[in-house]
Amino acid sequence: MLKRTHHCGQLTAANIGETVTLNGWVQTRRDLGGVLFIDLRDRSGIMQVVFNPDFSGEALAVADKVRSEYVLAVTGKVVQRDPETVNKNLATGEIEVQVTEIEVLNAAKTPPFFIEDGVEVDEQLRLKYRYLDLRRPEMQQTLMLRSKASKIFRDFLDGEGFADVETPILTKSTPEGARDYLVPSRVHAGEFFALPQSPQIYKQLLMVSGLERYYQIARCFRDEDLRADRQPEFTQVDIETSFMERDDLLSMMEQLMVRLFKETIGVELATPFQRISHADAMGKYGSDKPDLRFGMELIEMNDIVADSGVKVFASVIEKGGEVKCLNAKGCGTWTRKEIDDLGPFAARYGAKGLAWIQVKEGEFKGPIVKFFTPEEIEAVKERTGAEEGDLLLFSADTKKVVADVLGALRLRIGRQLGLINDKEFKFAWVLDFPLLSYDEEQKRYVAEHHPFTRPNDEDVERLESDPLSVRAQAYDLVLNGYEVGGGSMRIYKRDVQEKMFAALGLSPEEAYEKFGFLLDAFEYGTPPHGGIAFGFDRLVMLLAGRTNLRETIAFPKTANATDLLMDSPSEVDGGQLEQLHIKLAKKPVEEKKESNG
Amino acid sequence: MLKRTHHCGQLTAANIGETVTLNGWVQTRRDLGGVLFIDLRDRSGIMQVVFNPDFSGEALAVADKVRSEYVLAVTGKVVQRDPETVNKNLATGEIEVQVTEIEVLNAAKTPPFFIEDGVEVDEQLRLKYRYLDLRRPEMQQTLMLRSKASKIFRDFLDGEGFADVETPILTKSTPEGARDYLVPSRVHAGEFFALPQSPQIYKQLLMVSGLERYYQIARCFRDEDLRADRQPEFTQVDIETSFMERDDLLSMMEQLMVRLFKETIGVELATPFQRISHADAMGKYGSDKPDLRFGMELIEMNDIVADSGVKVFASVIEKGGEVKCLNAKGCGTWTRKEIDDLGPFAARYGAKGLAWIQVKEGEFKGPIVKFFTPEEIEAVKERTGAEEGDLLLFSADTKKVVADVLGALRLRIGRQLGLINDKEFKFAWVLDFPLLSYDEEQKRYVAEHHPFTRPNDEDVERLESDPLSVRAQAYDLVLNGYEVGGGSMRIYKRDVQEKMFAALGLSPEEAYEKFGFLLDAFEYGTPPHGGIAFGFDRLVMLLAGRTNLRETIAFPKTANATDLLMDSPSEVDGGQLEQLHIKLAKKPVEEKKESNG
Repeated sequence: MLKRTHHCGQLTAANIGETVTLNGWVQTRRDLGGVLFIDLRDRSGIMQVVFNPDFSGEALAVADKVRSEYVLAVTGKVVQRDPETVNKNLATGEIEVQVTEIEVLNAAKTPPFFIEDGVEVDEQLRLKYRYLDLRRPEMQQTLMLRSKASKIFRDFLDGEGFADVETPILTKSTPEGARDYLVPSRVHAGEFFALPQSPQIYKQLLMVSGLERYYQIARCFRDEDLRADRQPEFTQVDIETSFMERDDLLSMMEQLMVRLFKETIGVELATPFQRISHADAMGKYGSDKPDLRFGMELIEMNDIVADSGVKVFASVIEKGGEVKCLNAKGCGTWTRKEIDDLGPFAARYGAKGLAWIQVKEGEFKGPIVKFFTPEEIEAVKERTGAEEGDLLLFSADTKKVVADVLGALRLRIGRQLGLINDKEFKFAWVLDFPLLSYDEEQKRYVAEHHPFTRPNDEDVERLESDPLSVRAQAYDLVLNGYEVGGGSMRIYKRDVQEKMFAALGLSPEEAYEKFGFLLDAFEYGTPPHGGIAFGFDRLVMLLAGRTNLRETIAFPKTANATDLLMDSPSEVDGGQLEQLHIKLAKKPVEEKKESNG
Repeated sequence: MLKRTHHCGQLTAANIGETVTLNGWVQTRRDLGGVLFIDLRDRSGIMQVVFNPDFSGEALAVADKVRSEYVLAVTGKVVQRDPETVNKNLATGEIEVQVTEIEVLNAAKTPPFFIEDGVEVDEQLRLKYRYLDLRRPEMQQTLMLRSKASKIFRDFLDGEGFADVETPILTKSTPEGARDYLVPSRVHAGEFFALPQSPQIYKQLLMVSGLERYYQIARCFRDEDLRADRQPEFTQVDIETSFMERDDLLSMMEQLMVRLFKETIGVELATPFQRISHADAMGKYGSDKPDLRFGMELIEMNDIVADSGVKVFASVIEKGGEVKCLNAKGCGTWTRKEIDDLGPFAARYGAKGLAWIQVKEGEFKGPIVKFFTPEEIEAVKERTGAEEGDLLLFSADTKKVVADVLGALRLRIGRQLGLINDKEFKFAWVLDFPLLSYDEEQKRYVAEHHPFTRPNDEDVERLESDPLSVRAQAYDLVLNGYEVGGGSMRIYKRDVQEKMFAALGLSPEEAYEKFGFLLDAFEYGTPPHGGIAFGFDRLVMLLAGRTNLRETIAFPKTANATDLLMDSPSEVDGGQLEQLHIKLAKKPVEEKKESNG
């Protein structure tokens, strides 16, 4: 094999006159009157190589037979291109290589789609031929960006004294949280391992071990029905530390983000990041992961409209719900149809209706206006800052529905109005989460983060008497409307952990059966500790300017958890199942997997 | 919480006079006439802190109540110790901290074993209380060494342009090789994912993708019956590259090892590493992973003993077997009992008997000597270099048994004679493996490495006619008798891969059913590629001077694949199984897991 001396994208005018050997793939091949021009592509970029009877000899005949995606090694001299053939679109467009020797390392059939950026191909086909899809420069660049991001995390954390420790993938099923993936044991008939949803318990045990600072770029698993931004296996940067107060940890993590964004995409982040309480995030933006690149806050209306003639407002407030309003600046000129189109959208988030007021020709207009007194109109105007051309949108419902509806409308209209700067990266910490929420379905309290989150010290005593008022020492890191990280200070005393399990409805026996090893561990000198985990796939997605997690993962699964490349999951041998002491519950139904991928 | 200013092991005489705050665990506590001395331990080391009525005030009363493994924060002044109390065994033994403030961060029960190095505790107990076991300095240092080794691998590979790419853990069962761990699919009834035995196919597909240089510190899984140096999940440093010849890759990997050994344990390795053919390794050392720290090579005897009166020698040779001999220098003085004790040991490796000759008082002695002619004795003496006081051990059997028996005896006697220097690190590449071997049980050829290993170009044509003569472009890296890495150049042409599958007894249909995506991929412009994988757990074990893989893994499983800390695997809810469309084959038998851990 001709031995590579340079990469294609590495050559510059400084190499003119040198004899070089390149390896790569044929991007394009053009025959101009017996002279062959091949764009040769490798991971670093593209170089034009030329075959001409004047200098290529037998290589020309060989080159004549190559087609797109053939794998070549070529040797030749780097020369300046003729001024009229310089390609300004190519980094290497000023030079070319006059080939004297060629070796065809492998042939190629015509690929099922073009190997180029921005290709419009059905994603199913791209996933089936992932090895060709990944050959496209934008996909390669994303993989390289991901590799670089991972290295930056490691360099930073290593520099701060965090030890990289691997925790088990074959672990124990803990029926809190999402559904587990299970792995039947061959050695222990009838027993199962579970794949970890996170290394949470292991990292806490490492703190009990006195490791003090731990990190891991860890694979995690959740057997959930997938959405666009979920995968059955995902990667998180998992971090835990002892003897550190919350604010010191948050500052350190801010510095980590600063370095990550600077060294990957050259963006300088300002610190400290904004901090917002969970209550404010929900109240002002209708979301616990607010997009703070624009304002357009939700406005409280209860006091103004409680006694108005709008019956639905009054009755919602009476039942303990609330009325809020969004001022869509400049949308007062929308047609009735445009406004009505918001209805079905709002309904998806639970709205039973959507009241509105237009400010037009100096006046409030709209179906509900007639129910307001002039004083009320004045109060609404003052509270919302409504001006000529504005549109006020009202939601009246439970707190949760109002937040969901207006939060979604805020994002939709903000985007529509061009209020969101795609080049901006707006981080914020969401703080002071409630420790618990009440699950109507299960009729019990559930942990907002997880059962190991430490309550505020002064709230611990209310764990029994008024659980919903207890705040957690938890924090989420949000970026442009995505949650990119989250964590908490952890419980490290057995009695507090027992109180927490009790609040979650576990009897002492149940708690000990599930988490006895942790309760025991807390008695042998457990340091105060806490940590955070970053959603690595999502961070890479945002760094790469993508909107789909699958674009950031080399071999992702489809929305129905299928690998189209390898065609897994798949049926296995009966003998394998027998060894694992399991059998199929019933004959599997034949179905074409691709149909609902 | 008093905020840590220094780590315990960080303080030196240079800090004398400073007021510092330390966090850590109580290692020991001594009361000398009302003055309390506590050795406070953190990850970095130990510092003596002193409580004295003269300067400690109320802190003394608090300190009086603490016991071993309590977690403390203390503030005080660093002072020089009295000359007579300087502790030369402690890095920080010249100084101590006069405590003025104390905070008990957590209490501790008496641990089930001492938190100190070299503790003699049943491993079962250590694994059950792994979080305490890991608190022992030698375990912490091993975890830190592992973290550092991982970082060095990454830094080196990143510097050489290798991209860190994560490949799936939920992948497809391929019934080649070891037993798979299976994961039932909830979405696709009756189907299963498999946990990867290695990322082999994915890394090759990444080469098809044009990524050119890939690495991953990857978790791999094998559901095998475990030996001391196996774990159900293990970690390998997985590397693959395109457009690189074997020798360039091996040199690069040598530089990687040089850096790893220098930066972790300060050992300078000499390069290039020794190279030895597989045939020579087996012939001279009876092992494909020879310990080259000492000689004592196996000596061929067939030509000399074929016609001797030792019937078993003659008959073995006639049947195509062989006779080899080991010269155990200086063991000629062993008693008959000492020699006889080798018999059962050799039998474990398949020996039906063990013939021997002592050189004593200038003469050959032993039961078989009388069957030799004087010429034969002379020839044996010359071939083996046998001198006064030597012991010759003969094995006569199939090639394999002879290699196993004498290879094992060589190691045992070499160790016994002190020929092995524990401080030496002797690397070698084993090359020119056979591509295939014949599996008597399955009555078919099996791949020595794996089915993707490239045969030597000039041997390809013999794949059908004389498969056992085909050599592979494969290489193992051995260190002190352990295989620490292995890899090969890969097949990258469809026709060669098809020939290989045929040699393994797969019909074209079977081959396509199992590996169609790979065969297809080879047709779209696959570059020449190859790679290697290092056994990370084993390398760390050797770096740390340990002999048990479990010592290098934070949360290992026992020899019967049990996690004693979390008590997994464990039974799960019937509802969970139902969702996964499986049921238990039969009621599991009750058994105490700990009994056979």
